[in-house]
This record gives sequence, structure tokens and C-alpha cells, in this order.
Amino acid sequence: MTVALTPGATLASLREKKPLVHQITNYVVMNETANATLALGALPVMAHAREEVEEMVRIAGALVINIGTLSPPWVDAMLLAGRTANASGIPVVVDPVGVGATRYRTETAKRLLDEVDVAVLRGNAGEVATLVGVEAEVRGVESIASGADAAELARSAATALGVVASVTGAVDHVSDGETVLAVRNGHELLATVTGTGCMSTAITGCFLAAKPSAPLEAAAEALAAFGVAGEDAASDARGPGTFHVALYDALYNLDADTLERRAEIA
Amino acid sequence: MTVALTPGATLASLREKKPLVHQITNYVVMNETANATLALGALPVMAHAREEVEEMVRIAGALVINIGTLSPPWVDAMLLAGRTANASGIPVVVDPVGVGATRYRTETAKRLLDEVDVAVLRGNAGEVATLVGVEAEVRGVESIASGADAAELARSAATALGVVASVTGAVDHVSDGETVLAVRNGHELLATVTGTGCMSTAITGCFLAAKPSAPLEAAAEALAAFGVAGEDAASDARGPGTFHVALYDALYNLDADTLERRAEIA
Amino acid sequence: MTVALTPGATLASLREKKPLVHQITNYVVMNETANATLALGALPVMAHAREEVEEMVRIAGALVINIGTLSPPWVDAMLLAGRTANASGIPVVVDPVGVGATRYRTETAKRLLDEVDVAVLRGNAGEVATLVGVEAEVRGVESIASGADAAELARSAATALGVVASVTGAVDHVSDGETVLAVRNGHELLATVTGTGCMSTAITGCFLAAKPSAPLEAAAEALAAFGVAGEDAASDARGPGTFHVALYDALYNLDADTLERRAEIA
Repeated sequence: MTVALTPGATLASLREKKPLVHQITNYVVMNETANATLALGALPVMAHAREEVEEMVRIAGALVINIGTLSPPWVDAMLLAGRTANASGIPVVVDPVGVGATRYRTETAKRLLDEVDVAVLRGNAGEVATLVGVEAEVRGVESIASGADAAELARSAATALGVVASVTGAVDHVSDGETVLAVRNGHELLATVTGTGCMSTAITGCFLAAKPSAPLEAAAEALAAFGVAGEDAASDARGPGTFHVALYDALYNLDADTLERRAEIA
Repeated sequence: MTVALTPGATLASLREKKPLVHQITNYVVMNETANATLALGALPVMAHAREEVEEMVRIAGALVINIGTLSPPWVDAMLLAGRTANASGIPVVVDPVGVGATRYRTETAKRLLDEVDVAVLRGNAGEVATLVGVEAEVRGVESIASGADAAELARSAATALGVVASVTGAVDHVSDGETVLAVRNGHELLATVTGTGCMSTAITGCFLAAKPSAPLEAAAEALAAFGVAGEDAASDARGPGTFHVALYDALYNLDADTLERRAEIA
Repeated sequence: MTVALTPGATLASLREKKPLVHQITNYVVMNETANATLALGALPVMAHAREEVEEMVRIAGALVINIGTLSPPWVDAMLLAGRTANASGIPVVVDPVGVGATRYRTETAKRLLDEVDVAVLRGNAGEVATLVGVEAEVRGVESIASGADAAELARSAATALGVVASVTGAVDHVSDGETVLAVRNGHELLATVTGTGCMSTAITGCFLAAKPSAPLEAAAEALAAFGVAGEDAASDARGPGTFHVALYDALYNLDADTLERRAEIA
């Protein structure tokens, strides 16, 4: 199998296509993921009612499902949208925020993985470990690094769950069960702003919409793009507030050549 | 009929009255529209439960209804709040976000226009065109410019729907069915931040609360005020992040004389 | 009784413990209170479904309940989480946003105070006055200063409601019914940004998690910390937008010694 990494070209394609990225996400980060999507060059839409998710997802280039603030009507809509996306060949990204902290989150994430064909699962090590049955301490939406080797975790999660597993951390690891790609872009200030994980998931959806037939590459390229933007945003930041603001500027100003040159995917 | 445009005086009056502007809006932009309202000088309040919207709207100077993230309980509350506002003589602004993208949005917007006496309808060309039956391509909450002439669209929507139609775009057009006002303030960076349309609707509500007997003028003055703030915000912006932040500063620092001098309404 | 004020030491302890602070709060400020919590050094988690609040609150160091955008399922979850927190010895902070504006808000706040053992009630003068039956004009979520003396209001609310009452304003007053502490930190720009009251409540939850046995001191120290951050944020602000951003930087950069030196609690 050949892995064809072309982050700059994917970004250029995304900006030309301007795909609609349908996001059923949590209340905390909706504005943030919408703005990250728009700054990057795609079109965000949030819609969560059973009454409209089927129609909305059918006009989208990707569906992003994020379980950060669940309740039963939202879970129903997530499943309905996910199945509709599958039937229409639209790629689905799932972010299992805080899975492991409560049974409700864990069961919902497992239902999504069971009932929907998920292209990419994007989570931190604790969340992904929980879903493959590895012991991990999870406190709320934050995950304490598990002892497991992150590259192996990504590979085993991909195999066990039948997804591309995108495990983010100090170094990110993306795997389809065979290949494991390590992405070394990013900055520690990303961990000081709520929702940066959720943003990386939204951006994964954007890249997947631009490159639907290559989810492994799209997921790694998305993390590289977000990481490079994080590096740029950190350069003048005085803390999480100014970093957060600069992150949108950096996503907007990121050009394809710069991304191609600075992406550290191996 | 005389059109009396006094944007500076309306802004000064709004800041003196500090009207409460009740907003039933979408999850994505609640913080943004509340902050825009407060920065301008009015008082925002968000309340969406059937259990309290009647009481809340009765103490408000205007009601803003925005359908960006619908679900049945919210639609019920919007209708109830709208009818209560009508019964109390409180002006209502409706923002039909993403109408045309799904039947649920289209039907909800039509129900609101049927069952509530709407003073101002604030949308982009695609959304307004959908509501008057003109063909338009709508993708999610973004609208692809319809071929229709925007001034004529505003006029015909006002007549057909019995509202003041406020159609925003590169140039905004506001009409009561007879007069059409063009507003030429604004900046292209407004399109790079999620919720700036929703903010312009919230600010329309603020101006309407200050000038309830003249919805045509209030709607045009509101767009001029928001546009001038956008121009100011753009001056030092390095992208959507810094622009977004500067927009609140600009709304807060906008003074009545400056607005009077720089408003381009014709 | 000895009042032991050690704001710097409490902040240092909070950062070492990194407590999870479970927040059931309003849609408008969720991102803001999560980011303030994280910038200060604690871990925020938002969860509002009956299906998971019991489990979530049991792993938290404090529970923050904020009634800013109510609906019946949320009220149920607030009560359930509150009772669970009580059973597990986890301190509860309540923010009665906009109480007095509608009967639904007033009744919900009273139910919370009746059915849950609330450690700290954090509100503005109008809100707290409403809850102890003092006449106050409340418009939406903004409160027009009541004539009542704020220090006496804090003391009488603490006694009547059996809580530590934390009444914020130009000068804040915190009382357990015997002692009244006045906190003189802060800046007038705080009133120009939506949700700064809610942020102060979230930060009260953080301090309470670090110092659960001393709610009077924790509440006063939290307001001093937030106030000092507000003073720092104001130094270069050009309006509410830049102030809001700088506030997160200031919370993140606030060090224990600076807080100890600059806290004005008497």
C-alpha cells in the first residue's frame, strides 16, 4: 500500500471545493469548531434535530459527531445522521469526548462505532484506550496519559474498531491498522484552550471531505495543518486567550506551500 | 412617506435607554450575539423555555428569533414568545438561518412569518429568496448569491411577506416594500467569522428597541452601525480571530457622531 | 472564629490538585467558563444529562450550577447532580442568573436552595436580594443596584438561606452570616463582557475544590483572584473584545505570590 501524503494539495483542494461540513457537536465548542472550519476554508453547519439531520448530511462533504455534551435526543440524531451519511457515502468522523468518565458516554461511543461506519475516530490516548478496553484514567474530558505506547494504541484501535484511529497527544499517531503515521506538529498551548481537540476533529472532517478516499492520509494531514497553525499562533501569544485568537488567524493564513513544507508526518 | 435616517441619534438613544433585547437564538452564536448587544450598549437576555419566554419578552424592548439550531421545543418557544411580543407591542426580528437547506428550517421560518407579526426579516440573499419562492442555491447556513437583483429581492420580499426585509451581502438592501435603502458599510472579513450575520440581526433588534415605530430606518441604521464597526475592526486585523475580537471593541467604541458621519445609507 | 485568608496558597494548591470542576451552566457562557477554569489551572467538564450527571459529579472536586438558560430537563439534572454532590461531600456553588426576571427562574433557584445543600451562592445584588425577599429591579440577567447595603445583604442572605453568600458588584461582599468580607479587586470592563459573573462563579467552584472546608475564604479568594486578573487584563485593553481575551491570559499568568500581594480582602 502506498501512503500518499500531500497536505498542501489537500488544503488547496479543500479551499477550492469549500465543502459543507455537518457537525453535531457539543455546546461548549460549537462556535469554536465552526470558526476553525470557516477559517480553514470550508463551510460549517450545525444541525442536531431529528427533523433535519438526514437532509442536512446529504448535502455535506463530511459529518462530524462529537459526544461532549450528550442527551438522548442528540444521541438519536447522531445515530440517524451517521446512518444516513453511510447510505450516501459521506465520510463520518467521531470524537468520543470524555469517554470512560461515565457509562453513558462509553455506551454512546460504542453504539456509534457499532451502528455507524466510522471513517476516522479522533480522540486522546485515554479516550481511545477506553474504547479498546485498555485501562486508562480518564477524568472528565481530560485524559491522563496511559502507559500504553501511543503508536501501538493507534494501530490496535484501528484494527479492533475498524476505523482510522487518530490519537492526539504531544505527538499524534494515526493508523489504519497497518501503517502508523506520527505527526509531530503542534504546541503545548493547545492544551490550555478548551475545545482544541474538538477543533482538530472538525478539521479532520474538512480534510476528509476533500480527500474522502484516503482517510488515513486525510486524518494525518489535518493534524499537521492544525499543528502548524498552532505553532504559528504560539509565536506571539501571551497566554491561552491570545493564543486562541491567533489560532483562527493562523488557520486562515496557512498557505498550501507552507503546510507542505512544515508538515512533520512520518 | 419621509425616511428619517438618524443613525447617530438612534445609537445615542439606545445607549441611554439600555433596552433589554430578548434573544432566542442558536447555540453557535449565543455568546457572540450577547456580547455584540452588550458592547453596543443594550442588555441581552437569552431565555428559551416555554416556562419563561412570555414573562421575559414582556420586559424586553425587542425580541430576536434566530433559527440556526432548531428543535421542536425551541420552535414552540419561538412561536409563543413571538405571539406574546405581538400582543404586547414589542417588535420582533427574525433571522431565517439556513432556510432552504432543509424542509424543517423552511417550514419553521414560514410558520414564524405566518403566525407572528414580524417587524424585520434579516437574512442573506439566498435565505430571503427561498422564502419568497425565488430559486437559490443554499448550502447549509451559507448562501450562494442568487442571480436576482438584491434591491428588487428586498422590495419583493417586503411586499410578499409583509415585513421590512433586510437583505445583507456585499451591499445590504433594506425595504418596506416601497422604499429600498442600500447600506454600503462593512468589510469582507465579516464573512470569515461565524455568526456575524446573527450579530447583525441582534443589533437590528437593539436599534428596533430604540426606534420601534420606524423599522425600515432602524434596520438600515443597525446595518450601518455594524458595518462601520466592521470597517474599524478590520483596520488592524491579521485574520478572522483578531478581527472578531476587534469587532467588539469597535462596537463599544463607536460613537454617535462617527456613525452619523460614516453611515452610507442611500 | 478565625478567618484564614491565603489566596496565593489556595491557588497554588488548586494548580497542584487540578480538580475536575463539573459545571451545569448556561449555553451562553459554557466556552467562557470552561476556558476560565482551564486557564486558572483546574479541569472543567460540562455534562447535563440525567443519564450521566451522578457519575460525573462523583469524580469532581466541586459542582457549579448556573441557571442562565433553563429548561425542565436541565432543572432535573441540576437537582439530581446537586443531591448527588451532597451525598458525596462535594461542595456546590449556585449562580441564580436572572432570578427575579421570571417566576420560572425564581422558583428554580428556590428549589435548588431548598433541595440541595449549597455551599456558596454567587450572584449580583439584585439576584441575591430577590432570593431573600428584598425589593430589587431586575431586568433580564442584569441587575439594577438595589438600595440595600450590599454588605448587609450578603450577611442576611447567608443567614436566611444557610449558605455563604457571595454578592458581586463594584465592591464584592462575601458572608457566612457572621463575618462579612469585602473584596475590592476588579475592573469596570468586567461589566462589558457577557458571562464574567458566570466565570467568577466557575472560579469560585475551582477555589472551593481546593479548599472545601472553608467556603467563606474560598469564595472571597476566588473573587480576589478573578478581580486581580481583571485588573491585569484591563491594562492594555481597547474595549470588551481585547479585555475578554486578555482575561484568559491573565488568569493563566496569575502567580500565587502576586495574588497574595494584590488581593484586597478585608
